[in-house]
Amino acid sequence: MSRYKLVVQYDGTNYCGWQVQPNGISVQQVLTDALTKIAVGSVKVTGSGRTDSGVHARGQVAHVDMTTSVPSDKIPFAVNIHLPSDISVLTAVQVDEDFHARYSAKAKTYEYRLYVSKVKYPLLDRYATRIEQTPDVQKMQEVAKLFIGEHDFKAFMSVGSKVESTVRTIYELSIESGEQIVFRIKGNGFLYNMVRIIVGTILEVGYGKKALDTVAQALQGGDRKLAGKTTPACGLTLYSVDYE
Amino acid sequence: MSRYKLVVQYDGTNYCGWQVQPNGISVQQVLTDALTKIAVGSVKVTGSGRTDSGVHARGQVAHVDMTTSVPSDKIPFAVNIHLPSDISVLTAVQVDEDFHARYSAKAKTYEYRLYVSKVKYPLLDRYATRIEQTPDVQKMQEVAKLFIGEHDFKAFMSVGSKVESTVRTIYELSIESGEQIVFRIKGNGFLYNMVRIIVGTILEVGYGKKALDTVAQALQGGDRKLAGKTTPACGLTLYSVDYE
Repeated sequence: MSRYKLVVQYDGTNYCGWQVQPNGISVQQVLTDALTKIAVGSVKVTGSGRTDSGVHARGQVAHVDMTTSVPSDKIPFAVNIHLPSDISVLTAVQVDEDFHARYSAKAKTYEYRLYVSKVKYPLLDRYATRIEQTPDVQKMQEVAKLFIGEHDFKAFMSVGSKVESTVRTIYELSIESGEQIVFRIKGNGFLYNMVRIIVGTILEVGYGKKALDTVAQALQGGDRKLAGKTTPACGLTLYSVDYE
Repeated sequence: MSRYKLVVQYDGTNYCGWQVQPNGISVQQVLTDALTKIAVGSVKVTGSGRTDSGVHARGQVAHVDMTTSVPSDKIPFAVNIHLPSDISVLTAVQVDEDFHARYSAKAKTYEYRLYVSKVKYPLLDRYATRIEQTPDVQKMQEVAKLFIGEHDFKAFMSVGSKVESTVRTIYELSIESGEQIVFRIKGNGFLYNMVRIIVGTILEVGYGKKALDTVAQALQGGDRKLAGKTTPACGLTLYSVDYE
């Protein structure tokens, strides 16, 4: 039995998310089934973390414990034959047993895409969220700076998740505005729905509906009500996971 | 009965193309059915031209003859309620009877997207074609210049189409190389599969498999065999249609 580190890309539209769920098809399950076809015996896949229903991944990382005769550099080709067109293993390398996709991760980067239009654009809509009004991007870039550093993100977490600590560190939060408005956010970890609530909060500031002071207050372990709404899943992509 | 000019965007993945076909669901049919729901009596939709099965459109243009109580600027919202998520009417304006989506068109612009990778990228694969080898883009940009101007494109047409003349004028053909290789081609009209055969031909030059001389010969009304293969549909998008 060996351990392999896999980089996995998927279009999350048709999945209930990364994690195996009692109802709905998960990326983890489909990937496990495909790997089982190139392995002898049991296959255990562990992701760097969950992605929610409808969220995409450009570079999700997982480790898999399995016994296979396929050389590691050929694993992507061997397993992709058994995967549907919306999931693909990009790379596979053999790693030591002390590598853990979740616990060894040092940082994660997410992207969130918005486009402004009164009508739907089917060619953008799969990977971006439509908003009807143009927000003040400069104001959004200003409030984005408040998030950088270590904060108690209790106000930026959906209920129903149990965590020991709600303190996280954000390393980067950039907002670029072109045909789409693209948020890129890098941190040492993220709470349940944290990226989507951060985007929703910044957007409310961009609409002039929320003051900078309220955001600053929310960032001191404040109440969930101080932060903004959770934006839809389809605009979110797990961009990359960094290890040492 | 009035005539309206519609700009329509669609993800062509799940359609047999624009044109109504005996088997398969067409964009034209789905659009006609949706418009019928906001009109009184018959509805006739005429596109600027066909797009093939799997080809996308950022800005297809159609005219529709119908009687409706909906003001033209509200037509997109009224009809989009009845359209699936992969088709959307972006704009609607009332036009004179002498406007014809096909015959009044002065130019069309297409985009063709390629990405280079040994493995599939699900987040690119819907709107771009994967190639395994990196072509010489500079060489491709060089041969692209040969296409500009008026030529007999007989060699760049799939069999099975009847046209009076195979002479067309190409106004622009640019190739940009970044994360994807993006062809943008503008002309006064295009023969059946012409864009996809042009891309296939230029790509063979980029791989060093075809000489510039052969392409020049093909551009003088030469044999279909002188040109390259037809590239897959998913990489092609009808970008825009220009009128006076």
